[in-house]
Amino acid sequence: MTEFAKLEAVRLDEEKGALVLLDQTRLPTETVFLNLRDQEDIWQAIYSLQVRGAPAIGIAAGYACYLAAKYSPADSAGGLERDFIAARDHLATSRPTAVNLFWALERMTKTLEANRDEPVAAIRHALLAESHAIKDEDIRMCRAIGEHGLGLVKPGMGILTHCNAGQLAASRYGTALAPIYVAHEKGYNLKVFADETRPLLQGARLTAFELQAAGVDVTLICDDVAASVMKRGWVQAVFVGCDRAARNGDFANKIGTLGVAIMAKRYNIPFYVCLPHSTIDMRAPSGDSIEIEERNPKEVTDMWYEKPMAPENVKGYNPAFDVTDHELVTAIITERGIARAPYEESFRNMGLA
Amino acid sequence: MTEFAKLEAVRLDEEKGALVLLDQTRLPTETVFLNLRDQEDIWQAIYSLQVRGAPAIGIAAGYACYLAAKYSPADSAGGLERDFIAARDHLATSRPTAVNLFWALERMTKTLEANRDEPVAAIRHALLAESHAIKDEDIRMCRAIGEHGLGLVKPGMGILTHCNAGQLAASRYGTALAPIYVAHEKGYNLKVFADETRPLLQGARLTAFELQAAGVDVTLICDDVAASVMKRGWVQAVFVGCDRAARNGDFANKIGTLGVAIMAKRYNIPFYVCLPHSTIDMRAPSGDSIEIEERNPKEVTDMWYEKPMAPENVKGYNPAFDVTDHELVTAIITERGIARAPYEESFRNMGLA
Repeated sequence: MTEFAKLEAVRLDEEKGALVLLDQTRLPTETVFLNLRDQEDIWQAIYSLQVRGAPAIGIAAGYACYLAAKYSPADSAGGLERDFIAARDHLATSRPTAVNLFWALERMTKTLEANRDEPVAAIRHALLAESHAIKDEDIRMCRAIGEHGLGLVKPGMGILTHCNAGQLAASRYGTALAPIYVAHEKGYNLKVFADETRPLLQGARLTAFELQAAGVDVTLICDDVAASVMKRGWVQAVFVGCDRAARNGDFANKIGTLGVAIMAKRYNIPFYVCLPHSTIDMRAPSGDSIEIEERNPKEVTDMWYEKPMAPENVKGYNPAFDVTDHELVTAIITERGIARAPYEESFRNMGLA
Repeated sequence: MTEFAKLEAVRLDEEKGALVLLDQTRLPTETVFLNLRDQEDIWQAIYSLQVRGAPAIGIAAGYACYLAAKYSPADSAGGLERDFIAARDHLATSRPTAVNLFWALERMTKTLEANRDEPVAAIRHALLAESHAIKDEDIRMCRAIGEHGLGLVKPGMGILTHCNAGQLAASRYGTALAPIYVAHEKGYNLKVFADETRPLLQGARLTAFELQAAGVDVTLICDDVAASVMKRGWVQAVFVGCDRAARNGDFANKIGTLGVAIMAKRYNIPFYVCLPHSTIDMRAPSGDSIEIEERNPKEVTDMWYEKPMAPENVKGYNPAFDVTDHELVTAIITERGIARAPYEESFRNMGLA
C-alpha cells in the first residue's frame, strides 16, 4: 500500500469494530488515525472537524450508525431501534448545517426500518452493508468525476486549485482533485498550484499534503499569487469543488473561488467545477438564493498565530463561501458527465429535474 | 497630540540627539519607539525591517548621516568627512535594493561636499537642515497626493486597499492612504477594507493598525475575500501604492495587487495607484522590464505560525511583487497631479522625461 493510499479520511475497521478517522486537525504535521467506537467520541470528531468535507462526514455518519447498532446490548429489534435512534439524533446535532450528514442518517434509518422484522443480527448486517454502500458509491462517484475530467487534462499541464476537495474530504480521489489523480495514475506529470486558502489554510494543510503524498508535483502559493502564476502562463486549467450549485450554473464554494474564476477569465484559462450531481439544487434558480455563512473574524485576526496579527478589536469580515457566476464557468464535471452552458438544459439532459 | 499623530515611523529627537523609529516588527501588539544614536544600531534597524517603506527608509538614512557627523569626534572638515563616509558606506549595505536609501545617502553626501570649506559646526548644521528637508519634502509630497486624490473620493464611500502604503511607510499620510486621511480630516466617513496581504500581513499588522489609530472605519479581510466585497457593492474605489512604474503605466507593487486590479475591472470599480513622481521610470517602456524579487518560501509555509502549516519540504512560490497592466489602471495619482491614459503623454505633461 502506498503512503497515499493509507491516507484514507474515513474507513471502518471491522475486526476492531472501530471507525478509523485520519485526524485532519493535526495535519500536516502529524498523521494520526483515531479508532473510535464510542458514539460520544464520534460526535466530538465530527463537531471538532477531525473529519471534514461533505462526503467524508456522510460516510462517517453511516459507519457511526452501524456501530451504534453493533454495540447496542439490545436483543430485540425494538431495543436495537431505540438505541439506533438515540445515537442518530445525537449525531444530527454534531454539524447541523452539513447536508450529507442528514442524508446519510436518513439512508441508515430507512435501512433499519426496512429490516425491522428481521432478527437483530440481520438488522446489524443490513446496516453494515448500507454503510459500506455509502462509501462505495462515493468512491465510484469520485472516480467517475475523475474519468470525465480526464478528457479536459493534457500531460504536462499546469493546474490551479483552491481549498481542498480531494481524498481527505471524501472517500478516494475527491472531486476537484479526482481528474488530477486519475491523470497522475496515467503518468500525465501535471504541475499543480495549490492556493493556501485563507483563513483556515485547507490548501496548505490538506491539498498540498495529499498531493505531495500521492507523488503529484505540487507548489503551494498564497491566494494573492494566483493572478501572477496565471499571467506567467503556468496554468492551463483551474479545478475547484462546490458546496452547492443552482440550476443556472451559479455555485457556492470556499471563499476565494470567485476571485480565482475572475482571474482565470482574464487569462482565458478554462475554469472547471467538480461535483456530485446531488450538489446541484434544481429548485434554486440562481446563486442569489444561496445563503453565505459568516464565521468568527478571530479566524482572520488571531487563529494559528503565536501572537495576534492584527490590532486588538479591529473589525473583520469572514465569510466562509462565495458565489461564482455561471458565466465564469467553462464546464461542470459530475459523475454523470460534463455539463456546459446553458447549464439548466445540460443538467436536465443528465436526468436532473 | 492624537494617538495617530504619535505614530510617526521616523523622526529626529534633536534634544536627545537620537533617531526615533516606531519598531514595525513589533506592531500591532506592541507600540515601541527605538531611540538610536549608534550607527550600528541604525544599520540593524534598517536591515531587520524595524523601519520599512521606501520613503521612511530614505528619511531614516538622512538622519543617520546627520547623526554620524554629530557624533564624530573630528574637529576638522577632513576628519568629519572621513567619519561621514565610513557611516554612509556602511548604511548603504543595510538594504542594498532600496532605491530611496541610496537617493538619501547621495543627497546627504552632496550637502557635505557643498559645505566642505565651512567650519565643522556649519557642516553639521547643513546636514541637519538637509535631513529635515528630506522629511519635510516627503510630508508635502504625501499631502499633495492626498489632496489630488481627494477629488476621486466621496463621503461614505467604500475603499479597498492592499498591503501598506500609509503613514507607517513614509513621513505622514503615506501614498495610497493619503487620499483616505485627507478625506477623513474633512469628515468623509469612509469605509475602508484592508486586505491582510499574505504572506507578511502588512495589511493586517500595519494598515488596519494605523487606520484604526486614526479613527478611520476599517475592516480587515483575507485577500481571497476582496472579490466578495466588490461583488456585494461595498467598494467604490481601490487605492494602492507602487514600488516602480514604467512609462506606459504598468507598475509593480506588492504581490496580490494584480489580482485586485483584475477583480476591480470586473466590477467596474475605479482602480487608483498613488506614488511620488520619482517612482516612475521613464526609461522602462513597460512592466516587462521590471524584475520581480522572489523570497523564501518559508514565509508561506512556516512564518508567524506556532506550528508549520504546510507539509514538510513542500515546494512554495513566493514572489514579493507583481506587475499590473496599465489598462487595468483608472488613474495614477502623483504629487504633481493625476495621470490618465495614455500614461506616457500624461507623464510628459507632468514634466517627466
